[in-house]
Amino acid sequence: MLLSELAVAFNLTLAGEDCEFVGLNTLDAAAENEVSFFANPRYRDSLARSRACAVILAAEYAPEVKRALISPSPYRDFARAASLFVRKDGDFTGISPLAFVDPQARVGSGCAIYPHAYVGARASLGPGCVLFPGAYVGEDCLLGPGCVLYPNAVVLAGVEIGEKCILRSGAVIGTDGFGFVRVDGHMQTIPQIGVVRLADRVDIGANSCVDRSTLGATSIGKDSKLDNLVQIGHNVSLGEQCLIISQVGIAGSTKVGDRVTMAGQAGLAGHLKIGDDVTIGPQTGVTKDIPSGMKGGGTPFMESGTFMRSLALMPRLPELQRRMLHLEKELAELKKVLCNADANKEQK
Amino acid sequence: MLLSELAVAFNLTLAGEDCEFVGLNTLDAAAENEVSFFANPRYRDSLARSRACAVILAAEYAPEVKRALISPSPYRDFARAASLFVRKDGDFTGISPLAFVDPQARVGSGCAIYPHAYVGARASLGPGCVLFPGAYVGEDCLLGPGCVLYPNAVVLAGVEIGEKCILRSGAVIGTDGFGFVRVDGHMQTIPQIGVVRLADRVDIGANSCVDRSTLGATSIGKDSKLDNLVQIGHNVSLGEQCLIISQVGIAGSTKVGDRVTMAGQAGLAGHLKIGDDVTIGPQTGVTKDIPSGMKGGGTPFMESGTFMRSLALMPRLPELQRRMLHLEKELAELKKVLCNADANKEQK
Amino acid sequence: MLLSELAVAFNLTLAGEDCEFVGLNTLDAAAENEVSFFANPRYRDSLARSRACAVILAAEYAPEVKRALISPSPYRDFARAASLFVRKDGDFTGISPLAFVDPQARVGSGCAIYPHAYVGARASLGPGCVLFPGAYVGEDCLLGPGCVLYPNAVVLAGVEIGEKCILRSGAVIGTDGFGFVRVDGHMQTIPQIGVVRLADRVDIGANSCVDRSTLGATSIGKDSKLDNLVQIGHNVSLGEQCLIISQVGIAGSTKVGDRVTMAGQAGLAGHLKIGDDVTIGPQTGVTKDIPSGMKGGGTPFMESGTFMRSLALMPRLPELQRRMLHLEKELAELKKVLCNADANKEQK
Repeated sequence: MLLSELAVAFNLTLAGEDCEFVGLNTLDAAAENEVSFFANPRYRDSLARSRACAVILAAEYAPEVKRALISPSPYRDFARAASLFVRKDGDFTGISPLAFVDPQARVGSGCAIYPHAYVGARASLGPGCVLFPGAYVGEDCLLGPGCVLYPNAVVLAGVEIGEKCILRSGAVIGTDGFGFVRVDGHMQTIPQIGVVRLADRVDIGANSCVDRSTLGATSIGKDSKLDNLVQIGHNVSLGEQCLIISQVGIAGSTKVGDRVTMAGQAGLAGHLKIGDDVTIGPQTGVTKDIPSGMKGGGTPFMESGTFMRSLALMPRLPELQRRMLHLEKELAELKKVLCNADANKEQK
Repeated sequence: MLLSELAVAFNLTLAGEDCEFVGLNTLDAAAENEVSFFANPRYRDSLARSRACAVILAAEYAPEVKRALISPSPYRDFARAASLFVRKDGDFTGISPLAFVDPQARVGSGCAIYPHAYVGARASLGPGCVLFPGAYVGEDCLLGPGCVLYPNAVVLAGVEIGEKCILRSGAVIGTDGFGFVRVDGHMQTIPQIGVVRLADRVDIGANSCVDRSTLGATSIGKDSKLDNLVQIGHNVSLGEQCLIISQVGIAGSTKVGDRVTMAGQAGLAGHLKIGDDVTIGPQTGVTKDIPSGMKGGGTPFMESGTFMRSLALMPRLPELQRRMLHLEKELAELKKVLCNADANKEQK
Repeated sequence: MLLSELAVAFNLTLAGEDCEFVGLNTLDAAAENEVSFFANPRYRDSLARSRACAVILAAEYAPEVKRALISPSPYRDFARAASLFVRKDGDFTGISPLAFVDPQARVGSGCAIYPHAYVGARASLGPGCVLFPGAYVGEDCLLGPGCVLYPNAVVLAGVEIGEKCILRSGAVIGTDGFGFVRVDGHMQTIPQIGVVRLADRVDIGANSCVDRSTLGATSIGKDSKLDNLVQIGHNVSLGEQCLIISQVGIAGSTKVGDRVTMAGQAGLAGHLKIGDDVTIGPQTGVTKDIPSGMKGGGTPFMESGTFMRSLALMPRLPELQRRMLHLEKELAELKKVLCNADANKEQK
């Protein structure tokens, strides 16, 4: 492909001589026949060093490279360019004789059911779904058109999934919510008789879990994306366009608004209300409701400014304690001096 | 089903006119032909709004609803009622020709071995076990009667499992404990030659891991329940009726008593002793032994009262520091004033 | 086996009468025909009580047991002895007719492809690889000789794996990195067009995830070992001989040096540089670069000494606050007294 072709395709301005390239790579790793991009100022040093034949970047940096592909939004345009080079997993078509599809299941046109995939009774797959090996779709599940279940993704009975959802390897949708109580010396199970509903274009990361509700539905709104190893408890409701980073856990019945971002390893207690456009930092421990628009972190959850100041003091706690001791000593001495002075005065 | 039938079945008192209902749901989501329950005062507002045809609740709240099903323990009785509406996953019987069962394995009567399940040599399944697709039972494993391995649950060689245990999708029992040491510039593996033993009615959540011991056994006592994405290290021993919430990690050789509850994302160091009836809060970092009966949280683990007070001060650290600075300044000024006064006196 | 044979095999000194033994076990659990070892002083009490027929230990403790197998390095020599008793998972050979191997794939000599395993087009397996049931190898993957994929381990298209790597059950290598941005009210996917590269003898724990890079490669150096439920983000690079304990998460593009140890549930932000020989404590929240050789923990990451002192003050925060209040009160009183004294003086 020619640089000029890329420029035309995505409305970029080519500054420098045209040439062929074979792919995209990072500034540091790019060979002389690869294109790179520059969007994060942290990598300014790499920009100078890069062997890339051209770099997608903002106009102001164009003079620093051999050939520039000038963009008003370099990261977005890199993403567009990258879409040309995506490796499609798998090329299987049809239903493998090594798969199991229940005679009562309905499989839409153009679905690919790989060897060792399983489709249960009365399940319905919309057209163009792909079930990789080891994918499991339980009884009575509904999958919209164009869903992809990567190897060993599991959807248990009765789960409802919109169109173009992606379930990564090992994702488990619809396992029973954790409902147990100790009663009179034995353990009672709370049946989980609800379902899970994923709206359109939801993406569930590898080995993430979305639990079946006790009643009603655990639900995830359209365009929400979950990273790997995330836990969504029973009866949680997640809004639209949420971004949930790896290893986050959300306990039962918590309601989350739209466009909420949760960074890695954050944990949310149950029965909370999180507003829209909230950003929750990494490893945060959320124990109370959060109003819309708030950004923060820490345990307990604090607004960003407070959190950053509080965090900065953690390594200084020993120093604060020493200063406290010093103050106490000084004050005690001062009182002693004054007391003696008084006593002296009285003696006089 | 009639409300009156439900009342008779579970010894509830029906206050209001009898009618038919079709299922159970939450207060907010219930339709007019569904029954709901009220047990958590947090949902008082929902009680008034609910369209449910009847609500299982305590006598004192009965006047607030159209029809009440009065119960001394609404949550327990909701659980009992819900058990009537449980959706059973799967209805397969027998051994699928797409499954693999080693000729040397023993499979009890009434087992269901789904397509793509695997049973290794000399493994033994008690009567009534269910192996969903992708379930794996390694060589020499012993499974008691009535165990269920959901899709893609894995039990590696030699693991011993009691009766009526449930392994959720993606659970991995018996992978080697993490035993590596750097010795003289290379990495040495510590062989893990023990086993895992699960007692009766143990429930292991989706994608949770229980590691094989270095020596002896990693063991989980009867009626203990693990949520999803939990990590149990090698040689850990967990007592009976423990509740381990999602994403908890317990490091190697830690011994945990009976009826211990660990909230989400808590982490326990290795080689600890945790007593009976201990409750450990979310995200806690446990680095020392905990005596029986203690409840707490935080890092390091603190008794609940101390923990809550300490936690409340986190957002106030910047304020504490400012007050400290103010004190230091005031004291310094005071000393200067007194010093000057002394000097003046002496001059006089 | 005789104790004397064990002694000869691993250069141990037998103190006491020779006898037969059948296996190894912990000090507490060992029967009279089993050998144990003593390496951690924490278990001194167990040493006296043990029924083991012999104990591998340092010379100084030999007088405390019936029979000693004296070693300069008891844990290492226990590990060597244990290697004699390792249970090998599985004994399948050849390619099962229930497996699927793409006609365009290359399978080296002596590979074992279990039922329900899958090998995609143009994938290449070196000699002696083992693919347990449910293992998935995507298109164009390269696996070196002697790799083992335990049940349901997944390697997605184009991933490159060195020799003798071990992927535990449910491990997922090469799922797309988490690349989504909200743009103008919709969600844009950043294509992940890179690969994952695992060097020789890398070990990936059960249900751990190593994500495909946006560009270039996510890479793990030789002899690095990952425990269960670990998350490695896209474009992360991990050096050699790293030990990453369970539930650790490393965000995108972070570069980690050689011989780095991360304890359980630690989290690292993206785009960081971690030097060689760094040790990061449990549940640490790393938000900045760490120079080589540093040991520490906490959030933010602190050098060990500071961290331990800071941690010790957490339960004492309420006390510190009380002392602060007391100081403020005392100082206020003192100033009042002095002010009155001055006023008195002036009146006189």
